[in-house]
Amino acid sequence: MVSFISENFDLARAVEQDKQLINSHLENYLKVGQPKTLWKAMRYSTISCGKRLRAILSLESARICGGNPENVLPAACALEMLHAQSLIHDDLPCMDDDDFRRGKPSNHKVYGEAMAVLAGDALLAYAPQVIIEHTPDSVDKKVLFQLINEFLHAAGPGGIVGGQAVDIQSENKTIGTGEFDYIITRKTAELFKFALRAGALLSGASNEKLDVLTEYGKKIGYAFQIADDILDVEATLQELGKTPGKDSKAGKNTYVSFYGPDKAMRDLEDLTRSARELLINNNINSSLLIGIADYITQKVKK
Amino acid sequence: MVSFISENFDLARAVEQDKQLINSHLENYLKVGQPKTLWKAMRYSTISCGKRLRAILSLESARICGGNPENVLPAACALEMLHAQSLIHDDLPCMDDDDFRRGKPSNHKVYGEAMAVLAGDALLAYAPQVIIEHTPDSVDKKVLFQLINEFLHAAGPGGIVGGQAVDIQSENKTIGTGEFDYIITRKTAELFKFALRAGALLSGASNEKLDVLTEYGKKIGYAFQIADDILDVEATLQELGKTPGKDSKAGKNTYVSFYGPDKAMRDLEDLTRSARELLINNNINSSLLIGIADYITQKVKK
Repeated sequence: MVSFISENFDLARAVEQDKQLINSHLENYLKVGQPKTLWKAMRYSTISCGKRLRAILSLESARICGGNPENVLPAACALEMLHAQSLIHDDLPCMDDDDFRRGKPSNHKVYGEAMAVLAGDALLAYAPQVIIEHTPDSVDKKVLFQLINEFLHAAGPGGIVGGQAVDIQSENKTIGTGEFDYIITRKTAELFKFALRAGALLSGASNEKLDVLTEYGKKIGYAFQIADDILDVEATLQELGKTPGKDSKAGKNTYVSFYGPDKAMRDLEDLTRSARELLINNNINSSLLIGIADYITQKVKK
Repeated sequence: MVSFISENFDLARAVEQDKQLINSHLENYLKVGQPKTLWKAMRYSTISCGKRLRAILSLESARICGGNPENVLPAACALEMLHAQSLIHDDLPCMDDDDFRRGKPSNHKVYGEAMAVLAGDALLAYAPQVIIEHTPDSVDKKVLFQLINEFLHAAGPGGIVGGQAVDIQSENKTIGTGEFDYIITRKTAELFKFALRAGALLSGASNEKLDVLTEYGKKIGYAFQIADDILDVEATLQELGKTPGKDSKAGKNTYVSFYGPDKAMRDLEDLTRSARELLINNNINSSLLIGIADYITQKVKK
């Protein structure tokens, strides 16, 4: 199959450029304020760590739709804050009880549990404020309302929190495929979907293009979770940045424990192939989006 | 001093009427969705409990400014959800570790710690969505953005979360009056301030009126915290609905431990008197606002 990645395209370089842009904006939005320790805890889990995959997808989505990537930077950074918030709360002893995250001690290991709960709360309230306060005035207010509403949806009971709630309830239990699919969709795919939609919405994309990018986001998000579950079994602490094998030990339903390693690998490849085909069939020529689909499959094959 | 409460005014009845309106809307916004247990946990700490003081202040503020109280119901209910969220997280074992709240077992005693963390997160993300989705279309979008931004500010590091962070850090420590004032202002007064501002903003109040109501909100919120600290020493579990004496035992700085009971009582009376005078001097003739100021002082005198 033709991959449609331009010959001269350098994925690592493109990703690095966007990453720097995102990191400098995050640094700007998360300047240490009062109370100092709270802001430091908020920064600890957001600044200088993470691949920024979700935010990069937002920027590329804007570019594909002929928009200005600058317009989507506040929403893209808010998304990274939301992602950090969910990791801080997930790692708490009463949740997944993880001591390592992104290659360093978890938030509560450094700041204590109480401050980690508060840092998560603070990021959750502050992230949509960043969208309101920093999205350029030129953006249509109706679009901005839709964007914030979708952001809050992805963050709340219909999104990450909902997925995490079912995930926790299903520990050490036999669940059906519908319930398992619900967890992955809400916990992971919703944020990727929002990432793509944010760029498209802020760039005045047609409904058709918005639908295709939404679909790509869902597939890539789902694939990302499968890859994460495969790596949870195979990778080392250093490679993973968090404790490997933790999920299966905790009696969590992972894609590998649920469907077995072979189907997991097959489904991952099918999903990323289908995501690439979706772009090609709809004449969305983005080396970066195709490159990311490839990257998600390849990282588990190393 | 003239109290300016109309002779025929029945505070209990006025409060009860507003409370019913607020409760029926909360019931409507918080219908059990998927995942069921998460929504039940969200409802447990929000529905059928609480005085709804903050939401009532929002409705009255709208009436005073000649607005339609219906317009402010979504924001008023969002405020109650935010208040419930802060109580759920405050009661967690890693925070204030309280087993009782609002006369019943705390959220984590019923649903477990993990679900309580998630129920709080879910309320925090869902509350501003309620404002976006349910505030009538007739409200000016610029005003609505300001409202949501102020709501998120009151919820986040510059509001409740910030106050709670300093509060926790100052346990068993000697702090200055500035720091102590910061805790009360952020943790409690910010929400009361927002309650008053929400009603005024949505009713197109003049800047002067907005300023007076903001000031009243700050004073009443501050007074409310002093009264709460006095009751923490004096009341029983049944009267309080939460474990009495908990704050002082936990080495928390309360108004009573910080300034002594006499000054606490004096400052409470001064603040509520000053709140009443502020209204009278600015020709804001609201029996309900004056009644609430009286109520806050009287409830500790029983």
